[in-house]
Formats: sequence, C-alpha cells, structure tokens
Amino acid sequence: MLNNVVSLEGGLGNIKGLGCVGISAGFRRNPQRKDLALIVAKEPCVTAGVFTQNIFCAAPVILSKKHLMQADGKIKAIVINSGNANASTGEPGMQTAVETTKITAKQLGCLPEQVLVASTGVIGAPLSADVFADGIPRAISELGSFDGLAQDAGLSAAEAIMTTDTHPKQAAQKFTLVQNDGSEYKYIIGGMVKGSGMIQPNMATMLGVVATDAPLTKAAANIALKAAVDVTLNKVTVDSDTSTNDCVFFVSTGAGGGETIDVGDMALDGIIQALTMVCENLARQIAFDGEGATRLITVNVVGAASETDADMAARAVANSPLVKTAIAGHDANWGRIAMAIGKSGASFKQENVSISIMDMPVCEKGLPIPFDEDEALRRFDEQTEIVINIDLGAGSASTTIWSCDLTHGYISINGDYRS
Amino acid sequence: MLNNVVSLEGGLGNIKGLGCVGISAGFRRNPQRKDLALIVAKEPCVTAGVFTQNIFCAAPVILSKKHLMQADGKIKAIVINSGNANASTGEPGMQTAVETTKITAKQLGCLPEQVLVASTGVIGAPLSADVFADGIPRAISELGSFDGLAQDAGLSAAEAIMTTDTHPKQAAQKFTLVQNDGSEYKYIIGGMVKGSGMIQPNMATMLGVVATDAPLTKAAANIALKAAVDVTLNKVTVDSDTSTNDCVFFVSTGAGGGETIDVGDMALDGIIQALTMVCENLARQIAFDGEGATRLITVNVVGAASETDADMAARAVANSPLVKTAIAGHDANWGRIAMAIGKSGASFKQENVSISIMDMPVCEKGLPIPFDEDEALRRFDEQTEIVINIDLGAGSASTTIWSCDLTHGYISINGDYRS
Repeated sequence: MLNNVVSLEGGLGNIKGLGCVGISAGFRRNPQRKDLALIVAKEPCVTAGVFTQNIFCAAPVILSKKHLMQADGKIKAIVINSGNANASTGEPGMQTAVETTKITAKQLGCLPEQVLVASTGVIGAPLSADVFADGIPRAISELGSFDGLAQDAGLSAAEAIMTTDTHPKQAAQKFTLVQNDGSEYKYIIGGMVKGSGMIQPNMATMLGVVATDAPLTKAAANIALKAAVDVTLNKVTVDSDTSTNDCVFFVSTGAGGGETIDVGDMALDGIIQALTMVCENLARQIAFDGEGATRLITVNVVGAASETDADMAARAVANSPLVKTAIAGHDANWGRIAMAIGKSGASFKQENVSISIMDMPVCEKGLPIPFDEDEALRRFDEQTEIVINIDLGAGSASTTIWSCDLTHGYISINGDYRS
Repeated sequence: MLNNVVSLEGGLGNIKGLGCVGISAGFRRNPQRKDLALIVAKEPCVTAGVFTQNIFCAAPVILSKKHLMQADGKIKAIVINSGNANASTGEPGMQTAVETTKITAKQLGCLPEQVLVASTGVIGAPLSADVFADGIPRAISELGSFDGLAQDAGLSAAEAIMTTDTHPKQAAQKFTLVQNDGSEYKYIIGGMVKGSGMIQPNMATMLGVVATDAPLTKAAANIALKAAVDVTLNKVTVDSDTSTNDCVFFVSTGAGGGETIDVGDMALDGIIQALTMVCENLARQIAFDGEGATRLITVNVVGAASETDADMAARAVANSPLVKTAIAGHDANWGRIAMAIGKSGASFKQENVSISIMDMPVCEKGLPIPFDEDEALRRFDEQTEIVINIDLGAGSASTTIWSCDLTHGYISINGDYRS
C-alpha cells in the first residue's frame, strides 16, 4: 500500500545511505563542464540494472552486466563519465572499463566487481583510464553527504552525465508504505537521467540512476526496476534510434529501515508503484528535452487487441516523422495519425477507430469529425504537452508512449555541424 | 534469356497497345496543374497489382483489388487522380470510386470491373464523382496514340500523378527475349511513378504504373510484378511512413507479339529481370526526390544470416534520422550506422561487422579504421549518391535499400505551413 506521496526537489541527493557528486575530470575539452559522476553507497547495497538491447553495446555495458551477476551483486559505487561512450573500442576499451572499477575499488576499499561503470558520448574514440585515475580520488574527496540532504551533490551528479540535454533531469518523492506486518514506513525514491541527445560527432545515450532508502532484496529490486522501466523509460522515443550505451541502475540502500522487502511481499507493489511514478517523471523530462523539441507528445492507445499491438500502434505514431512535423507545425493532422497506426502492424478495423488530439475529437469510427481549427491552433499555442488519444476498438489493452515534435532544431543539432 | 537491354526516353508512352494522357480536371485549386491521368488499353488486357498494407487503406485501393480478382481480370483502363486521396471517406468515398469506374466504362464501352482507380492527395476530404464525370470524357478526347510513340502523352500522365514530387518520374527500356521455342522477340517495359511526397495538409502516396508489350498470362504478370517490386519499390524509404493509397499496376498489352508467357516458362525470368531493372530505376528516382533530399542513400547489406535480417539491418540504417542527418551534414559518421544495425533486430556479432561509406572503409571487425576526413568531404561534395556498404559477417543473405538524407527541407515541407 502506497500513501502520502509527495514530490521532492532534486533526485539522488535525497537518498539516505548514498553519496554522490559530479566534477569536471577532463573527458571533455571544455573545463567548465562536469563530466564525471560518482555515486557511492555507505555500505555495499542491492542494485538492479537494465541495459540497451543494441548489439553494438559498449564496454561499460558488458562489464556492468557482468558485475551485477557476480557474487552477491551488492554494489558500492557507480562511475559515469560523459564525453566518450567507450563503444566500438574493442579490447582496449574493455581494459579501460575494468581499470576504472579497479581504481575506484582501491580508493573505496571494496572489490572491483562492486563497482558499476557507464559511459556516454562519442562512439569509436579511445578512452584512457588515466582520466579516471586522476578524477576518481578527486570526486571521492568532494563526495556529498550520506544523510539524504545532499541536494547540491545530487545536482552536480545530474549535470555531469548531461550531453546535449539542455538541463539536468532529476525526480524524487517520499511516500508511506504499509509493510506486510502492518507497520508503516516512510521511504524516498529519487533519481536522475540524461536525455537521449547527441554530441558531435556521434550519438550519445540515455543513462539513469534511481535509488531508494527502502530495503529490497536483489530479486525484488530487479523485478521492480523492470516493471517500472517497461512502462516509463522504455516508452520514450525521440527519434527511434536506440543507443549503444543505454542503462538504468536502481539502488536500494535500506537506510530507511524496516523489514526487507522480497518478491511476493505486498509491499513490493507499493515500491513498484512509487518507482514507476519517479521513472515516468524522468521519462517525460527526456521526451520533452528531445533534441530540438518544442512540445512533449503523449500518445495514449486504448482498445488494442494485445499489449504488443498497443505498443506497436502508439510507437508508430510517436516515431512518425509526419506526425512529429505536423505537431511542430501546429497542425491537428489526424490523417497522418491514422496512416501511422494503419502501418504499425497492430490488428484493428479502420471503421472502429476513434482519435482525439488535445481533447478535440477528430476521427470517429474511422471517419473525419469536423473540428474548430482556430480552437486547435489556440490549444497548440497554449499547451506544451500535446496528448493524442487513440481507441483502436479492437480489445482492451492499452499503453502510453512519450515523444516530442520534430523541428529544424533536430536537423541543426544532428546535421548542420559539417555543412 | 535477356539480351540487348537499351534504355529509352519516357515511360508508358513507349508501350504499344496502350494510350495515356494527363489533364487538368479540377481536383486541385491550381488550374495549371494536371491532376487526372488516364491509361487505356486498346483491348482489355492482363493486369497485375500490388497494394499498400496500411489498414487505413483508401476506397480506390479496396475497389481496384476487387476488380483485379473479378472475371478474367482483364483491364481496359486505369484512372488516377491527384489532389485527393479518397481515404477515410467511408461509404460516400467508395460510391465515388464505383461511380468513376462506371463513368469510364460507359465512355469506353467496357465493364466497370475492367476499370481500375487510384487516388493520391489529402486524406479524409470528400471526393465528388462530378469532377470525374467532367474530366474523363475530356481525357479520352485527348488520349495519346496506341502505337508506342506517344512520349508527350506519357509525360502528361506522369505529370498528372505528381504531388510534392519535384519532377515527373518515368523509365523504360527495350530488350530482346529468347522465348521457350528459341524464337527471339523485342519487347519494351516502361512505367511511371510518383514519389512518396506530401501535400498540405496530409500525406500523399506512392503510385506507379508499369506496362509491357510482351504477352503474359495473368498468373505470370502477378508473379513478375511481385518479384520486381519486392526488391525495388518495396525497398524505398523516405521517412518510414507507409501511405494509405500505395499501389502499383503492371499491364501486359501483348502488342509486341510472340507466344504468351506463362508461369514456369524460361522467358518469364527474362521478363522479371527486365521489369526489375525498370522498377529499380523508378525506385531510385523516388528516393532521390524524397522531400527535402539532397542525396540518394543506397544501403547495401551483405553477410546477413537471412533475407529478413538483411532487410531489417538495411532498413534500420535507411530510416535512422541520425544516419540521414549525418549524410545531410556530410559526416561519415559510422558510429550511427553501427548503432542502427545494432538496434535493428538482425543477428550478428559486432566483432564481425565491416562498414564502408562511399568506398572508404570506416569500420572493420567492429572497430574504427582511420580514414581521410578531407577525402570524405570531397566525396560528399562530388557524389549525389552516397553508398553505404555493410557486411554483417553472419551469413550469405543480402539486400539493397534506397533512401535519402534528412534536411531542413523535409521539416519545412511537412511542418512549417501552419507555424
């Protein structure tokens, strides 16, 4: 049971038992920009991870996957650099990732396999361990407090993982959880992500760390993270391109006290619910800060024959360049939405489909509904979130996908720099 | 056996036994623009068709499919209008399509089911049969000759089906075919398409008509069209959006004489080969004239584990906004190509992948190869076709996909008109 959910400022800085910091270590040319985030658990603690499905996955992805499976999987630290993705770097890249965990472990007095690594930035450029050797001790010396009151430190970590993000992205909330034994505990979940952006001359990635002071078993943490990410961060699309470095970690410090929550415990439902809310908040921030975006697009599909159909239909709309440019042009162009669901592979009959844009019905039973174009333009001007509701009339499955409009800004960021 | 293949100017105007014309009938506001194409066979003749898979398919698609399955499937005429897609128009739209075939049949003295219809333009706008009632008799009076020397008439038909295409698209070639009985015949295959473009405020479509004076059975024509389109027009992508109105027709007038070619005849292989060449020519024209395009992108994938894998990998590259904007920015950004094949779903190992761009090797065995960036920029400047070769190192299947770069022009055409 989840009660008294209240949003908090900041992200990871709210989590008791976790210290974090972001510093400028020299991965980037610009010495003003932070580029190394370090997250340290007071005691090694339960951590779960989800990773990119891209076959061209980067060395840190491979190594962190391995570390999460090793030993008891308790993690002492997470090291994230921006500016270099350490992807397509072969054996030397893997050596750098391994070396990074050794440097960190030596400094913190833990095992290398208790350290996770993640990188974001240029693909195919060599990454030297020297910058880590220099930066990690410095980061440790500047680490924020472990008391859950380290807002500045949390912010600096969120800044250090940014690439083309226009602002750091954090979310946190506190809530009351009723445990199996009837006792009530107050917990916090908080986290940070970086948006799917690009840096010259190569693509960057989505990275995220969420954490809670609630005590979870490893299995419970894994289940909770997968459940939350499946309906939030995995439902974001900016340009349909999946990075080589995506990963999200979920840390449970247990510093909030109470009985440890395991698979099968009622309390785990509450944790999943709370984690999902935080991850949805972060997911929406990523979509809204998509490259060149001026509008967040939320695509709700209901009435699908299956969850797969719902996802295919919503994703086809959210990824359609024609829908995304129409939104950029403030055009309630439902024909393009119909086209997108029609090509998606989802099963339905066109005569059963209804569509509304910004709460204005534009298509019912597959046919156009006259609508007030001036009112549509007014809503486009006023609303920063454009909601598209689609009823396929083919079943009872549903989903939501978050995207953004496609503007000249996207082309400029990704195509102009060499011209 | 196929011999002496020679390209010809024009398209359908070269086909003996076929008359065609394009006129301005009033579907568009601009009276200067042709918007009605009429293709008439001297005698009803074998015709095959392939159609969009989009569930939101338009009334003319449904009706033409039906007519091709009816009776002996011999077709007297094809009527194509631009300016209005007659899609999402419900029962009235279907009545208009039916009425169009009746008007045409009455004028030409054939059965309504011997008439095919196709439309391209705005989705969801009512289409009146009145414009056809007025335009079709006029088109018939201006019909080009049936002698295979009607270049002007062929051009006018190609112009009448254009939407945002910047120029009409035609292709034709003559060739010598050795028949089963050893006799040699000279035949011609020619055709026209319109490129996947857009018209305000809705998406338009890919439409094509190809024809030959070689005599084919219905079954042979169907097989030849599917075989040719699968590796040509179905391998084009401008923006990954599938229209509601796509269709391609293949007409065999038989006016070139010789024995009728059936399924199982050796000569059918020659026809398929020749038809594939013409369709590839048209497919490349569509990709190159993609909205806002400055470069044709040809993605060759070899070494795939299956044809499906080859298609998935090549299509992922051809549709990736990051790859397409990189080409627009003259950036030989192979990291984005690696990312795209990595997310495609095709099976391979990154350490077996090789990639070259414009004949410059950029990645071998999954690792970067240093290349001359200045030379790459020179080639980007000089070449209008950018060839990307990818060897997945996972098998022996291969494919080619044609696409184009993604520029500010695409955003302007599709997103600027309301802002």
